[in-house]
Amino acid sequence: MPGELAKDCVVIGDPTEASQIYNKGFYGYPMSGGGLQLEFLEALFLVEASRLEVLSGEKPVPLHKLMAMAASDNRDFEIKYIVYRDLRQRGYVVKTAGEDFDFRVFPRGGSPTTTQTKNWVAARSERALFDMSSFVEDIDRAERTRKELLLAVVDEEGDLTYYSADRAEPKGRLEDPGSGEEVEARLLEDRVLVFDEAGAQRLYGSGYYGKQLGKVLQLSLIEAAYLMEEGRLRVSTLATSRNVPLPRFKKRALKFQPDFELRLSAYRDLRSRGMVVKTGFKYGTHFRVYEDDPDKIHARFLVHCIPEDHTTTWPEMSRAVRLAHGVKKEILFAWVRPQGTEYLRLARVRP
Amino acid sequence: MPGELAKDCVVIGDPTEASQIYNKGFYGYPMSGGGLQLEFLEALFLVEASRLEVLSGEKPVPLHKLMAMAASDNRDFEIKYIVYRDLRQRGYVVKTAGEDFDFRVFPRGGSPTTTQTKNWVAARSERALFDMSSFVEDIDRAERTRKELLLAVVDEEGDLTYYSADRAEPKGRLEDPGSGEEVEARLLEDRVLVFDEAGAQRLYGSGYYGKQLGKVLQLSLIEAAYLMEEGRLRVSTLATSRNVPLPRFKKRALKFQPDFELRLSAYRDLRSRGMVVKTGFKYGTHFRVYEDDPDKIHARFLVHCIPEDHTTTWPEMSRAVRLAHGVKKEILFAWVRPQGTEYLRLARVRP
Repeated sequence: MPGELAKDCVVIGDPTEASQIYNKGFYGYPMSGGGLQLEFLEALFLVEASRLEVLSGEKPVPLHKLMAMAASDNRDFEIKYIVYRDLRQRGYVVKTAGEDFDFRVFPRGGSPTTTQTKNWVAARSERALFDMSSFVEDIDRAERTRKELLLAVVDEEGDLTYYSADRAEPKGRLEDPGSGEEVEARLLEDRVLVFDEAGAQRLYGSGYYGKQLGKVLQLSLIEAAYLMEEGRLRVSTLATSRNVPLPRFKKRALKFQPDFELRLSAYRDLRSRGMVVKTGFKYGTHFRVYEDDPDKIHARFLVHCIPEDHTTTWPEMSRAVRLAHGVKKEILFAWVRPQGTEYLRLARVRP
Repeated sequence: MPGELAKDCVVIGDPTEASQIYNKGFYGYPMSGGGLQLEFLEALFLVEASRLEVLSGEKPVPLHKLMAMAASDNRDFEIKYIVYRDLRQRGYVVKTAGEDFDFRVFPRGGSPTTTQTKNWVAARSERALFDMSSFVEDIDRAERTRKELLLAVVDEEGDLTYYSADRAEPKGRLEDPGSGEEVEARLLEDRVLVFDEAGAQRLYGSGYYGKQLGKVLQLSLIEAAYLMEEGRLRVSTLATSRNVPLPRFKKRALKFQPDFELRLSAYRDLRSRGMVVKTGFKYGTHFRVYEDDPDKIHARFLVHCIPEDHTTTWPEMSRAVRLAHGVKKEILFAWVRPQGTEYLRLARVRP
């Protein structure tokens, strides 16, 4: 079927042919008079499917010319086209989506004339920077319109990975009754040790703080700082028994973990939500988080802390999601801001 | 059983008691005269197991005092002790190992008097920097003595992860016969497209270069640069058909991937080993590598490229190993040096 190349679209003039293309897949935008305007994306897809031949005057326009024209007035055209083609090949009706997102997708079997948009789609190159605040803006914009946000990330070979993204409000079931009077602990390099067995029992019993190593309860720096803030722990050095007040303790911890304050903020928030928080080192992430007694249940979440103004890369995000997926846990990104910690969930999906 | 605190050890004077401790677990070092010298590590472990009480004069030395003394003359004592205890609790005979490593471990059922060392053990804190060249030195030193190297990494909560580490020489079965005369390709942003169907077929058929997307073969920047180096590809811009020589192409690629040269070196080396190399984006790593036709077999390796003077962190290494493990692939670290690319393998093990 022939279409005529126009300035920024391809026009199918014949009304019968136009309605044939429109009705089978909802390509293009019907014109008054019965013709159809196709976006370059749509025209390219139809050319590749051998349903359309684009002419300029009487002469056929070769594929690479058409692609060059399409690319010239559309930033990241190639990325968008890869996503468009993939979703179309999966049988979805896909339309471009104005300014906020790249595409909107209709539910399977649906169409612009009969159904509401199901997903907003943002097409991204794996090489694009991942900017946390604009990511959250996208999520919120999608949630305001009650559509799901689908991120389609294109790798350097044109392979696609889809992610759903939304906000999360994780909640646990732990009620930490406190541990009575301050427990004495000793600082040894980057570890805090509780030699007092009754105190150790009170700490572990109330909120699963620390880990029993032989006869000693060992607290991580984060746990110790949190318990000191709560007035539940007093720390002195192991070597000289000299008291270590909280500010000095934090300063020391910063030497071992430059992101100590970031982690501590997220730790505090997760604890306030009734969850038990342990290191996520084995999973290459900041925390693993339990909704209750870690001796009885598996950790449900892996939590990765992200500072307010964080910019990262897609491969880093991809890695965190993939890791969590591999161990059957949900990944949450804890976005630590002065006004509070927010949680974003990213999950691999197959559309 | 009592032991007497000495300057840098604990002494069991009674010959019967000494030989009892030595014979059941090979703790300590027999002294002329029948006594036994215990290292602090050993003494602490025996105290925790209630097999030893340490006295100073007539007075018992409390655990935290003993630990403080042990820590005062031994850097990273706490880390070493956690590893020592864990290996002992697993039933191994463990002895300190001189200067090069922390411990040597005997095979199960073995002992210093009857068997050779099985593993050298290096105890590391997850907070310690990971320095590639000293890591490789450790591997080579272990290989020279024909022992396996075991890395015991202690996380902030005292949990242990063991890794075996060695060199690898990956080899594939692909024989790339070349693809005849130069194939024409077009550059569009960060993608290279081959519109010429016969040329695309020659490239994919000879070495599985690129990926068919619709009617177009798409090459990654790395693939295109490699093929240009081999005189198999000529690239011009899609928009203006202007020729893009290799140096200009590389300069452009560097803008998208600052580590482009690093990746390209490893890519070239892996290709020269008869393997098919594709992006590892989905796995959060640089490459996934096939020993043969990627349409018929799964990728065996994930390869992460590391520059000559690279210093990283243990959590980053842990993450890469964990990821590969989750998708049942081997992780190789490609250490790209001017004298050639070397491969190091790190695998989680349970001792």
